Amino acid sequence: MRLAVIPGDGIGSEVVAEGLKVLRAVAPDLETTPYDLGAARWQRTGELLPDTVLDELRQHDAILLGAIGDPSVPPGILERGLLLRLRFELDHHVNLRPAKLFDGVRSPLADAGPIDMLCVREGTEGPYVGNGGVLRKDTPQEVATEVSLNTAFGVERVVRYAFERAVTRPRKHLTLIHKTNVLTHAGGLWSRVVEEVSVEFPEVSVAYQHVDAASMFFITDPCRYDVIVTDNLFGDIVTDVAAAVTGGIGLAASGNLDASGTNPSMFEPVHGSAPDIAGQGIADPTATVLSVGLLLEHLGRSEQARKVDAAVAFDLSTRDPRATIRTAEVGDRLAALAGG
Amino acid sequence: MRLAVIPGDGIGSEVVAEGLKVLRAVAPDLETTPYDLGAARWQRTGELLPDTVLDELRQHDAILLGAIGDPSVPPGILERGLLLRLRFELDHHVNLRPAKLFDGVRSPLADAGPIDMLCVREGTEGPYVGNGGVLRKDTPQEVATEVSLNTAFGVERVVRYAFERAVTRPRKHLTLIHKTNVLTHAGGLWSRVVEEVSVEFPEVSVAYQHVDAASMFFITDPCRYDVIVTDNLFGDIVTDVAAAVTGGIGLAASGNLDASGTNPSMFEPVHGSAPDIAGQGIADPTATVLSVGLLLEHLGRSEQARKVDAAVAFDLSTRDPRATIRTAEVGDRLAALAGG
Ligand SMILES: CC(C)[C@H](C(=O)O)[C@@H](O)C(=O)O
Ligand SMILES: CC(C)[C@H](C(=O)O)[C@@H](O)C(=O)O
Repeated sequence: MRLAVIPGDGIGSEVVAEGLKVLRAVAPDLETTPYDLGAARWQRTGELLPDTVLDELRQHDAILLGAIGDPSVPPGILERGLLLRLRFELDHHVNLRPAKLFDGVRSPLADAGPIDMLCVREGTEGPYVGNGGVLRKDTPQEVATEVSLNTAFGVERVVRYAFERAVTRPRKHLTLIHKTNVLTHAGGLWSRVVEEVSVEFPEVSVAYQHVDAASMFFITDPCRYDVIVTDNLFGDIVTDVAAAVTGGIGLAASGNLDASGTNPSMFEPVHGSAPDIAGQGIADPTATVLSVGLLLEHLGRSEQARKVDAAVAFDLSTRDPRATIRTAEVGDRLAALAGG
Repeated sequence: MRLAVIPGDGIGSEVVAEGLKVLRAVAPDLETTPYDLGAARWQRTGELLPDTVLDELRQHDAILLGAIGDPSVPPGILERGLLLRLRFELDHHVNLRPAKLFDGVRSPLADAGPIDMLCVREGTEGPYVGNGGVLRKDTPQEVATEVSLNTAFGVERVVRYAFERAVTRPRKHLTLIHKTNVLTHAGGLWSRVVEEVSVEFPEVSVAYQHVDAASMFFITDPCRYDVIVTDNLFGDIVTDVAAAVTGGIGLAASGNLDASGTNPSMFEPVHGSAPDIAGQGIADPTATVLSVGLLLEHLGRSEQARKVDAAVAFDLSTRDPRATIRTAEVGDRLAALAGG
């Protein structure tokens, strides 16, 4: 397995080190190439993602990314120029984000039942396309626009992926989240595509919810959800709500998939670079380890993925929720459990 | 006080009846004009908001609205043609949504501390402008767009309003919520305006959060917020998250304000028409009554507003959370408390 590794900024390198520890424990054939991308490189050289690096990344089976972002960099530079550029260039149209409440994990919800959702967020369209602009900047007449672009091609492939996942799950239920009553053009497209693709999956029951209502039900009744499919920006928000109710960002894993297999997929914890705790060895690497599980599953290494997931599930069920996290200790434990 | 009343659809007329009961108890000079707008009128006549009705509405001091929406109407028709048309035509640029956890109300959060936020959502711009379109509809080459429009004029007036509210509150804290790292054009405008206006309010401390992070902190640490200011769509979502953690949509009030006073402002519960429970007399009218409190406050009738708010606070602190709501009984109790 040829893995490109982008530790990135802040706690990125700390959590990635533990992710690799666990990965090595189950996949001894691992070959890694580290890539120095992120705030430091930009500060030093002005480079974000050189084309030559992008070409090299393409030669790998998958990419593991820690976190990108630093307060010293103006907002948008690293996000648009590096993280989103990777997602767009590598056609990561499926942003896969499971949100499961593991045994032993304390949800902020008082009566959290069994939460087990799989959020399928579109990754290459919507308001993330970077279309938009500013007129008369810095004047009282300034106008700024952002354009959400949605194509039948782009929506159909992610909706199809969501149905394919839903049909393999016990509940076989899919919820489309959008805002069709306000964003009628984009919402119409999404609704029609879901309706059309649903014909091919008669076993899957389909529901629709507006994003505002869904954000509420994620809190008041998260157990009702199985698979979710939604647009890029709504997905960004609702997956953080889902993460919050299932124990927080320390456990939220994600995969940026090119489901066609043409380009390497990229796996990353949902959390950011957390500069406030960087360098202290107290970041929870669990989200990265769960992302490694998604990586293995994506590469067809289901048995290895199962070992990683089982290690995390066991560890969480036995962790003392009040104990301080020690990044390396968690990684050691998980590697021992997964490899043993 | 000349009040235009739009009961609307579903439970709208039920909750509005109780809102008026309470309003009459504290403001005996109330004169109401009912307006029959909503799904039934559209089904019967094809009319949504005739210009003559809009002209009449303008002659009132304020508008009380129940709820708009019915599953028999395609998504967007009533929302765009009636509710949003009202907000846009009457220049309701401040969408005010308090989210307070009242004593006696059970939050779904296990350790909810004292939550008391005031969300100031922009109401006439952003992705709600209805700019966008569809190309090659219903073909595999379909493209659908939505444009978010943001102007310095529009952002500045709502940001200023938020600062003016923040400076009167004990904590004097304001959080801007946006997604500046992805929506760099609109986000840049919002950030710069907040920075500029903040100079005039040195007592107000200012924070910024991305909408995804904020949606999480609303759940894991809602006590940290005081006043929030945000764009139309983000405001739609985060205010529902805020409502969820403070006891749900049955308690979420809102005001659509033309803060300049040129047009009548409109007050409405955040919840929808709830066709599933309409006609049964079991809808909670509390959100409407709290909206009546916002209405009175907006019209400068602070003493009357205080009576309404105090009635709700007392009633909630003594309600049996397991008892079934009876719409009229709640209204009777609140009217007696407020008027007595
Ligand atoms: C950092 C940012 C660009 C990114 C996003 O908005 O997609 C992050 O929030 C995420 O969810 O992965
Ligand atoms: C019904 C809909 C158009 C409306 C909105 O999105 O603003 C509602 O959700 C609200 O929050 O008042």
